[in-house]
Amino acid sequence: MEVTSPAFAFTVFGHDLATGARRGRMTTVHGVVETPAFMPVGTQASIKTLLPQEVRGTGAQIILANTYHLMLRPGLDTLVAAGGLHRFMGWNGPILTDSGGFQIFSLAGNARVRETGVTFRSHIDGSPWELGPEASISLQLGWGSDIVMALDHLVGLPADSASVRDATDRTDRWLNRCVTAFNELGGQERAALFGICQGGMDGKLRRYSAQAVADTNVNGCAIGGLSVGEPKPVMAEMLEIVTAVLPRDKPRYLMGVGSPEDLWMGVARGVDMFDCVLPTRLARNGALFTPEGRVSIKQRRFANLHGPLDPDCDCVACDQFTAAYLHHLFRAKEILGLRLASIHNLRFLARQVEDIRRSLDRNAFAPAHAAFLERYRPVAAAATEETV
Amino acid sequence: MEVTSPAFAFTVFGHDLATGARRGRMTTVHGVVETPAFMPVGTQASIKTLLPQEVRGTGAQIILANTYHLMLRPGLDTLVAAGGLHRFMGWNGPILTDSGGFQIFSLAGNARVRETGVTFRSHIDGSPWELGPEASISLQLGWGSDIVMALDHLVGLPADSASVRDATDRTDRWLNRCVTAFNELGGQERAALFGICQGGMDGKLRRYSAQAVADTNVNGCAIGGLSVGEPKPVMAEMLEIVTAVLPRDKPRYLMGVGSPEDLWMGVARGVDMFDCVLPTRLARNGALFTPEGRVSIKQRRFANLHGPLDPDCDCVACDQFTAAYLHHLFRAKEILGLRLASIHNLRFLARQVEDIRRSLDRNAFAPAHAAFLERYRPVAAAATEETV
Repeated sequence: MEVTSPAFAFTVFGHDLATGARRGRMTTVHGVVETPAFMPVGTQASIKTLLPQEVRGTGAQIILANTYHLMLRPGLDTLVAAGGLHRFMGWNGPILTDSGGFQIFSLAGNARVRETGVTFRSHIDGSPWELGPEASISLQLGWGSDIVMALDHLVGLPADSASVRDATDRTDRWLNRCVTAFNELGGQERAALFGICQGGMDGKLRRYSAQAVADTNVNGCAIGGLSVGEPKPVMAEMLEIVTAVLPRDKPRYLMGVGSPEDLWMGVARGVDMFDCVLPTRLARNGALFTPEGRVSIKQRRFANLHGPLDPDCDCVACDQFTAAYLHHLFRAKEILGLRLASIHNLRFLARQVEDIRRSLDRNAFAPAHAAFLERYRPVAAAATEETV
Repeated sequence: MEVTSPAFAFTVFGHDLATGARRGRMTTVHGVVETPAFMPVGTQASIKTLLPQEVRGTGAQIILANTYHLMLRPGLDTLVAAGGLHRFMGWNGPILTDSGGFQIFSLAGNARVRETGVTFRSHIDGSPWELGPEASISLQLGWGSDIVMALDHLVGLPADSASVRDATDRTDRWLNRCVTAFNELGGQERAALFGICQGGMDGKLRRYSAQAVADTNVNGCAIGGLSVGEPKPVMAEMLEIVTAVLPRDKPRYLMGVGSPEDLWMGVARGVDMFDCVLPTRLARNGALFTPEGRVSIKQRRFANLHGPLDPDCDCVACDQFTAAYLHHLFRAKEILGLRLASIHNLRFLARQVEDIRRSLDRNAFAPAHAAFLERYRPVAAAATEETV
């Protein structure tokens, strides 16, 4: 199975026999991405605390940046004058940018949706802005994204079914305008365009929205509006409904996910790509992934642990420093602690997708998933210990 | 001229003909330091925002850490259990630690001096502590400093001459106790001990204090209590008084200095070593050194400067990123900006002492100093522009 355009290709070359898991490869203008893949988030043209070479060193192949933030600061003109987003931030690998929609609805002030687009106020200085489907595509192509996301309309949950239906329909209409704008701007020569399925937690709307994206001439399909607080079985159910409808030859991207356990869960249901601020945000709070689950490095028990936090980990934090030193850096509020924790958590998620890909290459995804679940205790189960 | 002990040696192998400037080399247990040298400050066992290999990469040969901070957190026991300060923080080069005195008087609460030592309250949790000459030496040797500083008594300025005289006398008596403690603990086998001259801005007391240190069996002589707000000509005058008295075969360390212009000024008066938090503290405020003087990277004029901040600089910030990107990182409050600015400023000071050493090796210190002053505008002269 292969889909190609001048600037984008995706091949699925392995399937797990027992689950929906797939092993694939995306090719973009700025390089190859082995899938399943996790994308670190560089909201403001910086993966927080890290240099591009450090991000690359964690095993990341592609990163994400946020259109809402970039349009406000530094703005398209500066990014164009800099020679594009890649040169500006010094990352020469693939970059996916979101459409701006999600953050307009979650961060900006006074967001108002009309059929033409969304008006809102900047969270930085309160200035008034507008973003529609055509403008979102134009911005993303303007600063040189490798993967451009279509603008979608999100409603905050819980919402009545009429509101969800209305937003889902608008997302569908906006998608068609995004495709037209993308093609008119010559997007296929330079980038890929992904559509986004919405539909809240309503199975029928999810199926309808997924079908609309499936029927559209896009390079990939994203699944939005999940991992927003719903119970995990509901997310899994929605995911199964959607992936059953999505074309099998296009990459599937589960937006805003996330945790180690959700990566395995999503891959088992046929997801190829993930992104989330969780690893870097947790890191800055001192919450570090280990093969047994998340721990808070600030806990007293690490004050005199003069060995690596995770002896299995090959990141610079575990390779070069002790848990006691990380503990000290967090207690003393030293910025180096935030850096080392960020590297560690990104490396941990990169190792998850590396393990996943290796297991798929060996036809052993299900046992690898079981071995992960056997050892890793998700936060809910570990909550009592974490508060000690 | 050479002074050696099992753990420390210093050689002066070049003198400028026109000034007091000297070219030398210190050898410590953890390596060699070419002098004149600037020492970055790692107050809490971390050069703020940076990895040890990055600090090394700026050209730093030796770093400083603060006894006051380390004794409170993580504490001697943890540092000993970690295998010493070097292993704890991952820096395998020489480390100088101060005595704790300066920060007890500037940071701690309720500092009270008795002849035995100082009692004070921790700035972290208000807990009561005590530090005397013997304890300061014992702490510094305990965690493995390469250069140990004697405990001195500082008085805040302005102070009446009786108070300054009293503190200077006490510093002298404490120095003798430090020497005794250092020798009893076998310090000469593992480290060097430096005494500190005080004396405020009183030339007579300065000469007296310098003579007391000169007459004591220490490995090096530090000049304390300068660069504390006095006019620059006063600092230069005090420095000339002191260096005329200090032995010519021991290293001279001007504490808490500093700025690029003060490094050149101090070297011209015979100083071999400097330390200061200025480069990293300024960096975190967005104030960056350039060959023309300090600039604020937050200024609008950098928003679209799509080239290096300093084309002559070989640091990662100037080599890999543009001034526009640094500007964006500071505007967006991204931690990566603090890192890049810290690296740049440390590299700038390291390049100053590299230029100084090279000029001494070529018998061309005075013209190099003149060329520096011709181009570099210190902050006072540049203040108007900086506030724009």
